[in-house]
Amino acid sequence: MSRLRARYELRLATGESAEARALDLAREQTVELPAGVAAAEREAASVGVVESVAEVAPGVHAATIAYPLAALGDADLLQLVNVLWGNVSLQRDARLLAVEWPRELLARFLGPALGVAGLRALCGVERRPLTATALKPLGLAPRELARLAGECARGGIDLVKDDHGLADQEWAPFRERVLAVAGEIARANRATGGRTLYVPNLTGPVDRLEERLETLREAGVRAALVAPLLVGLDAVRALAAASGLALVAHPAFAGSLAGGTSGLALELLFGDLFRLAGADAVVFPNAGGRFPFGYDDCRRIAGRLAAPLGELAPSFLMLGGGIDAARLAAWIPRYSADTIWLVGGSLYARADLRSAAREMAELVRRVAPWPVEATA
Amino acid sequence: MSRLRARYELRLATGESAEARALDLAREQTVELPAGVAAAEREAASVGVVESVAEVAPGVHAATIAYPLAALGDADLLQLVNVLWGNVSLQRDARLLAVEWPRELLARFLGPALGVAGLRALCGVERRPLTATALKPLGLAPRELARLAGECARGGIDLVKDDHGLADQEWAPFRERVLAVAGEIARANRATGGRTLYVPNLTGPVDRLEERLETLREAGVRAALVAPLLVGLDAVRALAAASGLALVAHPAFAGSLAGGTSGLALELLFGDLFRLAGADAVVFPNAGGRFPFGYDDCRRIAGRLAAPLGELAPSFLMLGGGIDAARLAAWIPRYSADTIWLVGGSLYARADLRSAAREMAELVRRVAPWPVEATA
Repeated sequence: MSRLRARYELRLATGESAEARALDLAREQTVELPAGVAAAEREAASVGVVESVAEVAPGVHAATIAYPLAALGDADLLQLVNVLWGNVSLQRDARLLAVEWPRELLARFLGPALGVAGLRALCGVERRPLTATALKPLGLAPRELARLAGECARGGIDLVKDDHGLADQEWAPFRERVLAVAGEIARANRATGGRTLYVPNLTGPVDRLEERLETLREAGVRAALVAPLLVGLDAVRALAAASGLALVAHPAFAGSLAGGTSGLALELLFGDLFRLAGADAVVFPNAGGRFPFGYDDCRRIAGRLAAPLGELAPSFLMLGGGIDAARLAAWIPRYSADTIWLVGGSLYARADLRSAAREMAELVRRVAPWPVEATA
Repeated sequence: MSRLRARYELRLATGESAEARALDLAREQTVELPAGVAAAEREAASVGVVESVAEVAPGVHAATIAYPLAALGDADLLQLVNVLWGNVSLQRDARLLAVEWPRELLARFLGPALGVAGLRALCGVERRPLTATALKPLGLAPRELARLAGECARGGIDLVKDDHGLADQEWAPFRERVLAVAGEIARANRATGGRTLYVPNLTGPVDRLEERLETLREAGVRAALVAPLLVGLDAVRALAAASGLALVAHPAFAGSLAGGTSGLALELLFGDLFRLAGADAVVFPNAGGRFPFGYDDCRRIAGRLAAPLGELAPSFLMLGGGIDAARLAAWIPRYSADTIWLVGGSLYARADLRSAAREMAELVRRVAPWPVEATA
């Protein structure tokens, strides 16, 4: 029987048994009853099994638990996440390190509808890294945002995304903004022969999603930004399955779930799970920017977005979070070609946005060929 | 101008300025540009303002930031959460402690559609605490789950909910399970004259939600269980606004977001935000059970579910997580009457489930009148 193996890190209290703790966890995540209450032969098919427990540091153990696929339902992303990290999320001294994904399970999910190849095709870029910027700040009117977008497109930036804080504020209501920005980018593309992609922020009320998708279709938009932990991971999956849009996943609100001594490993959340949900690109802050992540953190996420994962397409890592355009040349060779470089503030700090955008676009073309490194 | 005030705890690196850190946070959550890039007069209406910063412990500061309501959009729960805890969720040394909710903002949200009064009316219980149990374990067939549900209903339990791990597994597919359990509970209610409420687990694929709601209507079900951090907070809001169901919110997957030295304060997530999203009852592990929470944690959450919050109805706290039926009598007087006591495992451990359920139901009636304490 094929099983889903998950590796947890457990921090024990003094005198606590690692084996007992792992057994409790395996039951908590499945049958949620103490041993002995239900018949053992019945539990054989449903309960998580502890496959190994080993001390990895004083007081810290790693436990591997194998869950029966039957416990996950058929193609239910939320139940999958619930089994991996549902109730145990309430324990402060546990952490989910890694998951070994059975092919049989992966086959139930579509993953990224476009993936690296599809997004490259949309942008008309075969091999180099892509460039991106964000429309900001909050408070600009649609025509002002459209002007900025037009400058970036004319400068040759591949993706122009809404800042994730652009929602449906009075300054720039969703529909008006999308139509204005998409129109201006289309004009710029006609003028330059380029294929700059607009990525409006779709994160918002779920009962207005259909109406917003209709606006995107009307505006000829082919991509969208979503924050999976705000709209819900399964809403991303459903969008990937049905919308036809390239999906860029934003880490807003998700940071608290990952990267500490409890919660999920960064590369599991922003790598495996965001990709499984269908993100064609995943935004994450690069090392050395405004956020406290290191190069190794980013590389591990890049690795999970690129690594073989059943038949699922690989996704881009979109690195942002305060990258200075001036330091971009040094960063580019340190990641694979399947990286999108997102530069916002340091472009806007320049008097001539179009020139700043052009310099960035040219830089990314010039730095290639970068050393081709495996990121896994 | 009315503003949304949020209080953050900031842990500083050596030599870091608390004021500068608070200013950075206020900008990160709104305009997301360094000072000086956009015109100051434009920012006045959109940027977060640092109202106070004070050291509360060595190296730990509390900062109050006031956000303009215009930055939040109109009735956009996700953008509200995004402004409070979007990008800053990626900082490991910050924590959101509390929010002061302006009436003008609260008025944009419905909150719990039924609330304490509505759920009491559904159950036909005026003043005492309610009782609940969970159908488990995973692996039982619909007719077996229905039998358990019937025993609990005949024993006089007020709410019988699906275990949050019951999804759409082959053992008990959603539709078949809901029809079987709802039917058996209805039969029990007719036999006893009682009004036991079935609370099936609605957490699952969002693109099958309409079909599942249709099944609930067909089965005459009036309540549902949802895990807000799995389906998404706004999916709960939309359900509260349109489904007519009493919504019980489950903390699965949400634990990692709250309760540590980063993330959200427990009472803010499970109290304010779940209530704002529309939970009529919020499941949380009681002190002394399988999870590492104390009585004060639970009381703080109860306080936020009960406290005045604009025109929003109060919600029940549903305490579970390993409460032993034998210790219930001691726990009941320690919380207000607007508490639902969720006992699972220790009922199932008894040979005669109906008697166990009846004893629990009678106990809750007998312990009243408990001391009426304000929980705020």
